[in-house]
Amino acid sequence: MALTIGIDIGGTKVAAGVVDEDGKILESLQRPTPADNPELVAGTVAEVVKDLASRHEVEAVGVGAAGFVDETRSIVRFAPNLAWREEPLQRKVAELVGLPVVVENDANATVWGEYRFGAGRGETHVVCVTVGTGIGGGVVLDGALYRGRWGMGGELGHMQTVPEGKLCGCGNLGCWEQYASGNALVAEARRLATADPGRAATLLAIAGGTPEQIDGAEITDAARDGDPVALEAFDWLAGWLAQGLADLAAVLDPGCFIMGGGVSRAADLWLDRVRERYAEKLTGRGHRPLAAIRTAELGPAAGLVGAADLARMP
Amino acid sequence: MALTIGIDIGGTKVAAGVVDEDGKILESLQRPTPADNPELVAGTVAEVVKDLASRHEVEAVGVGAAGFVDETRSIVRFAPNLAWREEPLQRKVAELVGLPVVVENDANATVWGEYRFGAGRGETHVVCVTVGTGIGGGVVLDGALYRGRWGMGGELGHMQTVPEGKLCGCGNLGCWEQYASGNALVAEARRLATADPGRAATLLAIAGGTPEQIDGAEITDAARDGDPVALEAFDWLAGWLAQGLADLAAVLDPGCFIMGGGVSRAADLWLDRVRERYAEKLTGRGHRPLAAIRTAELGPAAGLVGAADLARMP
Repeated sequence: MALTIGIDIGGTKVAAGVVDEDGKILESLQRPTPADNPELVAGTVAEVVKDLASRHEVEAVGVGAAGFVDETRSIVRFAPNLAWREEPLQRKVAELVGLPVVVENDANATVWGEYRFGAGRGETHVVCVTVGTGIGGGVVLDGALYRGRWGMGGELGHMQTVPEGKLCGCGNLGCWEQYASGNALVAEARRLATADPGRAATLLAIAGGTPEQIDGAEITDAARDGDPVALEAFDWLAGWLAQGLADLAAVLDPGCFIMGGGVSRAADLWLDRVRERYAEKLTGRGHRPLAAIRTAELGPAAGLVGAADLARMP
Repeated sequence: MALTIGIDIGGTKVAAGVVDEDGKILESLQRPTPADNPELVAGTVAEVVKDLASRHEVEAVGVGAAGFVDETRSIVRFAPNLAWREEPLQRKVAELVGLPVVVENDANATVWGEYRFGAGRGETHVVCVTVGTGIGGGVVLDGALYRGRWGMGGELGHMQTVPEGKLCGCGNLGCWEQYASGNALVAEARRLATADPGRAATLLAIAGGTPEQIDGAEITDAARDGDPVALEAFDWLAGWLAQGLADLAAVLDPGCFIMGGGVSRAADLWLDRVRERYAEKLTGRGHRPLAAIRTAELGPAAGLVGAADLARMP
C-alpha cells in the first residue's frame, strides 16, 4: 500500500506522520516550529521527513501551513504567525527531501482529512469551520477541495459579521472570528464577569478571582457547573456561529458543516444551540433541506492526514 | 450548427430566444407571465417554444426561473414572485414540447451567459451580482456552474450584512440586498431627502417635489446633475456593494465579479467607488491579487443566452 507523509506546520509545532491510503497514521512525531526564521522551517520539515522516510517507503509529502498558499500549491504568500512573505516552501522542501511535495493551507488540509476519512465521509459539499483562537475555514465542493482563483478561498473567519465591529488581526473590523472563536468566547465571558461579578461568582472562583484570569477551560468548567455568565457566553458564541453558517449556506448550500478546533471539545455546550439558531436564520428555510452540523472526528490530526492524502493527487 | 432555445421567466414577462453555439440570438419573443397561476406558466413556455421551433431546428430547451431550483435541475422548490411551491416545471414543459429541457435558477443562467459569452470570457472563477430591485447571484467556479448540494447555492443577496438590520422579503433581518440593491438605493435617497429637503433640492425637483416620488431614474439623473443627496446615496450603495464583494472574496476568491442588473446601467456613478472600497476592505489585501470588478456585457439577454447554453449540457 502506498504511503505518504503529512506535515502540519503550526505556529508552535511541526507535526508529521506517515499515513496510508485509508488515512491511518502509522508513525508520527513532532518538533517545535522555528517560528522566527522561515529558512529554518523548511529545514525542520525536511528533517522530520528524512527521519520518517528512513523507516517507511513513502511516495510523496503533503505540507499544510497556516497561511495564504498560492494556487500552484507551492508558495506561501503570507503567513501572519510565521513571518513568511512569498515563501517558496514547496521548492525548498522538495530540494531538501528529493520527493514530490505539495503545500496546502492548513485548514484546506483539515477539511480534506475530514471529508475523506472523518465527519465528511459520504458527503459531496462540506464546509469545515475550525474554531480555535480564530476561525480556520476549508471547503470541499462537488467532491473537490476548493481553492479559489488564487488559492485564497475559504478564509471564512474574515467575512464581516458586524459593520464597524471588533478589530480583527487582519486589520479589518467586525470579522466573524472576532465573534465566533475561542478568543471571542473568552473576551465575552471576561466582559460579562466585569460587568456583573456577582452573577459570575462560580466562573470567577474557578478562574482565580479576576475577570482577566478567565480562560476557555474555566468557561467550560463553569458552564458545566451552571454558571449563568459562562452559559450566556456560550449562547452568545452559538448565535454568532449560527449566523456565519447561515451566511455560508446562502452562498455555498453545503450538505454538511464540520465544526473542529479546540472549542469543539466543548461542543456539548453549544452544538445543539447552533443547530437551532441556524435553522431559525437560514434564508429560504422551510423550502430547502437543512445542512447537517457535526463535530470533527479526526481531531488535531485531521490536517496532517489530509495533507498526506492531498500529496497523492497531482 | 446546433441551436437551442433559452427562456427567461421573470415576474412580469417570459422572454424566449433561439440561440446558436456562439451565444448569438437568432430570433426572440416575449409574452406576459401568467404570474398568478403556475399551471399556465408551463403552458406559456411551451407555446413560445413551439412557436420558435416551428421556424428553427432546435435540439433542447433551457429555462431560467426566478426561484430555488433543485439540484436535479427539474423542480422549482419555491419562487417568491411566481406562486410556485415544489413545481415540477421541467417535466411539465418537457411533456408539452417533446424536447430535452433543463431548468435553472435565473441568476445561475445569467452568470453562465456572461461567463461563456460576456464579461466573464477567459475567466475561471466568476461571481455575478445582479443588482436590480433585489440582488441576484450566480457563481462559476473552476469553469463550472456552482449549484450547491441541493441547488440552492449563490443566494448572495441573503448573506446577513447588518445584524438586526433592515427587514428583508426573505423574512430575515439585515440581508445584503436591503443595503446594496436598487430598492435600497431608493430607500436611502428618500430617507436623506426627508431628513434634509434643502440639500436634496435638485433631486426633489426632478422627482416631482416629495421624497416619496423619488425613484431610481431620478436619483441617477440628479447624481449626474451633482445633487449631493443623490451622490451620497450612490456612495452609500457603493460601500455596501464593496463590503459584500469583500465577504464573497474571503469565501470564494474569484478572479472576477460581474455587476449586472438595472442599477449597473448607472455604473459610471458607482463602479470606481466600489473598486476603491473593495480594495480597502479585502482581507489579506496586499498579499493577494485583486479580483476584477466589471459590468455585465449581455444585458437582460444574459439569462436567456445562458439558459440556452446550459441546455446543451446533460
